Amino acid sequence: MKKVLFATTALIATASVAAADVRISGYGRFGLDYNDANDRAVNGVSKTTITSRLRLQFDMSAETDSGVAFDARFRAQSESRDNVNQGSNPSGAAFNGARFGVSYQGFRVNVGNIIGAVENMPGLYLETRTAGIGIDGAGFVSNVGNVNGEYFNWDAYSSAGFGVNGIEALYSTGGFTGHISYSTRNGAVAVDRFGVMLAYTFGDWTIAAANQSSDIMWEDKTLVSVAWDGGQFGARVAYADNDGISKFGIYGNMDIGSASNLLVFYTDEDAVDAGDVLAGRNDNRDAVAGSNQQEGGSYGIHYSYDLGGGASFEAGYRRASNDNDTFQAGVYFSF
Amino acid sequence: MKKVLFATTALIATASVAAADVRISGYGRFGLDYNDANDRAVNGVSKTTITSRLRLQFDMSAETDSGVAFDARFRAQSESRDNVNQGSNPSGAAFNGARFGVSYQGFRVNVGNIIGAVENMPGLYLETRTAGIGIDGAGFVSNVGNVNGEYFNWDAYSSAGFGVNGIEALYSTGGFTGHISYSTRNGAVAVDRFGVMLAYTFGDWTIAAANQSSDIMWEDKTLVSVAWDGGQFGARVAYADNDGISKFGIYGNMDIGSASNLLVFYTDEDAVDAGDVLAGRNDNRDAVAGSNQQEGGSYGIHYSYDLGGGASFEAGYRRASNDNDTFQAGVYFSF
Amino acid sequence: MKKVLFATTALIATASVAAADVRISGYGRFGLDYNDANDRAVNGVSKTTITSRLRLQFDMSAETDSGVAFDARFRAQSESRDNVNQGSNPSGAAFNGARFGVSYQGFRVNVGNIIGAVENMPGLYLETRTAGIGIDGAGFVSNVGNVNGEYFNWDAYSSAGFGVNGIEALYSTGGFTGHISYSTRNGAVAVDRFGVMLAYTFGDWTIAAANQSSDIMWEDKTLVSVAWDGGQFGARVAYADNDGISKFGIYGNMDIGSASNLLVFYTDEDAVDAGDVLAGRNDNRDAVAGSNQQEGGSYGIHYSYDLGGGASFEAGYRRASNDNDTFQAGVYFSF
Repeated sequence: MKKVLFATTALIATASVAAADVRISGYGRFGLDYNDANDRAVNGVSKTTITSRLRLQFDMSAETDSGVAFDARFRAQSESRDNVNQGSNPSGAAFNGARFGVSYQGFRVNVGNIIGAVENMPGLYLETRTAGIGIDGAGFVSNVGNVNGEYFNWDAYSSAGFGVNGIEALYSTGGFTGHISYSTRNGAVAVDRFGVMLAYTFGDWTIAAANQSSDIMWEDKTLVSVAWDGGQFGARVAYADNDGISKFGIYGNMDIGSASNLLVFYTDEDAVDAGDVLAGRNDNRDAVAGSNQQEGGSYGIHYSYDLGGGASFEAGYRRASNDNDTFQAGVYFSF
Repeated sequence: MKKVLFATTALIATASVAAADVRISGYGRFGLDYNDANDRAVNGVSKTTITSRLRLQFDMSAETDSGVAFDARFRAQSESRDNVNQGSNPSGAAFNGARFGVSYQGFRVNVGNIIGAVENMPGLYLETRTAGIGIDGAGFVSNVGNVNGEYFNWDAYSSAGFGVNGIEALYSTGGFTGHISYSTRNGAVAVDRFGVMLAYTFGDWTIAAANQSSDIMWEDKTLVSVAWDGGQFGARVAYADNDGISKFGIYGNMDIGSASNLLVFYTDEDAVDAGDVLAGRNDNRDAVAGSNQQEGGSYGIHYSYDLGGGASFEAGYRRASNDNDTFQAGVYFSF
Repeated sequence: MKKVLFATTALIATASVAAADVRISGYGRFGLDYNDANDRAVNGVSKTTITSRLRLQFDMSAETDSGVAFDARFRAQSESRDNVNQGSNPSGAAFNGARFGVSYQGFRVNVGNIIGAVENMPGLYLETRTAGIGIDGAGFVSNVGNVNGEYFNWDAYSSAGFGVNGIEALYSTGGFTGHISYSTRNGAVAVDRFGVMLAYTFGDWTIAAANQSSDIMWEDKTLVSVAWDGGQFGARVAYADNDGISKFGIYGNMDIGSASNLLVFYTDEDAVDAGDVLAGRNDNRDAVAGSNQQEGGSYGIHYSYDLGGGASFEAGYRRASNDNDTFQAGVYFSF
């Protein structure tokens, strides 16, 4: 058993002779997940389970004589939630679909398992290591693009699947980033998704907006965010119109001492429009009470403590608008 | 095509700057397997087939400022037995479920695809490179925990599957190791397995005992072993009560010259108890003769020759208590 | 994210201390595929799609004290054709079946996912980076072993599957290579494939011949090739008798300037013999016109431009004997 990875200083010495390379990186995270939606008598899952993920990522690259660079990425991740294997293979994990890229200075084109313009919008995910609450994101209810059971209905890099096999172009200069993406599905009629995203950072501020236009019902959406990063303190607001369902969020975080960070959020989601329901939209109505389960407020709190060496302790609680409570605590380490 | 792994001397130079790393290791083994249970006319498999395995293992780790270490492991292995793919994917191999660990000095906690307390008992497996006879273990009939078709019915690290998604704690100090493990399955009623193992090494001697308490029928078991390693000679006895079926084994091995080792074993297994059969226990009774096929003695012999550079020649014959004969010979190399 | 692979100069420094190692290599390729056989209204696939592949290969090796070397190989490749995942896993890619080898001087024995004697014949594939036309080979109609829908019906290394689990021996000395291979399938009756290949290179010339004898219908075949490599210019002829269906091919390529190469080919395939059709052979007859679709000429042209750093631009057009047209263009980079 021998060491594969070397630290930065060793790399500098050889960087001038390597025209093509493979980089390996990733992270492990594991902890306990309390979820009051789980109940052995109801769904066969204990209220408290192990939540874990091991991600191993391979990044390949080559640079031509003219300075144009090619790269590709895929990853394998083994994962457990609710005491069930979430990996991409019955045994654990296979590699996901690959993303290929060509880049030159600030310009980049990707094909395959693309990032996606909406997914890439700053201010969409939480400022935590998991991009959500707790160890595994706890369902990402803080994301203003997620409403009414229509979660993650935009083109995005798939960590455990083949992805949308799309194409996208990105351009960055100074604090500005522009991003357009496109994907289509096989079938007798073209079913396309177009995405566009613009972001600008000036001083402590970042503003961003994104739009997806899709041939699939209920997937047209427009999102905006404004974030302020003042060093010890950070604040953000975000809003999305998800094909008629509005959701806004407000987010704040602060460093405590030299190693801790505390984050809180609140989001509020509109009810499904009555006209949409007539048009066939699922409104996730509560079978007993008759109320829309997703409508209303969600909130959460997350605490992080840096353990050094790329490791940290992470813990978070959140209450979703459907009254689902989760609390997770565990560790996270990168390599 | 470039070299990834470096030898130990190169690692020392960089160890001080690497806080997190990935290590790659594994082995290849391949050879021929003669198994008289195979017959084209009966099960469609030739009596002599290729047996092979390629294991590629990734070990990730990070160490915090306080000296607490985190680690994770998974592996991919492509394998053939009886001319059939045994890998974790129809095409060959995917990664198995991950094991995550946190350790500090002699203390360790693992979650996920755990080792398992019973599995970790010294004196359970043969003192060969395959931990059994021949190239692929030849069914591991020498293991006193394997009886009556109830093979490997304890929590153990799964090389080709997701594993039991359990939790375990280990503590080692001096020659002592203590190990407890726990796993549960989803379902309306909790189905748990608890394991405990204690081992102690003093001078040339190692004594060990383990117990599994399971909510699944026929899985409660207690195992003990005593082993003596006298350098050129080694000897061991082991005994297990497998929910009423006793099995004991005696094992001996000796070095011959500078590169060879010869190992022999004999095990004896009790018949299934009549009361157990009434209670529904399968007794693997011979359809024609009416005798219990697993009852009685198994024996085997294994020869190993060190070829240097991490490679060796391995050959072994064993006769199981059901009169099944296998002979395997081939090579094994680590990397 | 840290660099794994080092360039050659770094390796030399440590080569003397490494007895066993793992090497990682591979390539990425991606581009657009126009295929007039695709039509949303007919098969649900757009005429123009992304074609891509990411291959990650692991080569393990160990060398014994006597100089006998052991090695093993497997790879994972994520791939898309016709906007459909072609990888070995629903999510993308798993590892394929492993090939194991033992070698000493010019002699080598492999088991498992073997190369195959016919597959290894020089002059069987095109002199391009994809071994065919365009980015993904465009169906490999230029290969004289591919006739009448009986494509790739010989033992060959499988990149995305488990392979034939065979055994083969190769011997090379000077310009001579000899290769025999064997595989069998499970079943009540042995179904075997034997292959043999001989090749000889002298000066600018390489001549080669191969034969497969198979217990499966329509798989007996004999192939020959003669190739001339004159530096700036290259030429080749190939011929195969595919169990009664003759196919010949003529191939030429030339360097243009310092970075470009242009290749052209023409192949001609006989019709299926009437006696064979009576014996049950599929003749791929056109449902409307009544003519044999595979019979007759195929041709193609391929252009390659070296971008440096292991990357190149590749483009190719080919027309198959069934009047199918494809044009592909994109990039290819190795790491």
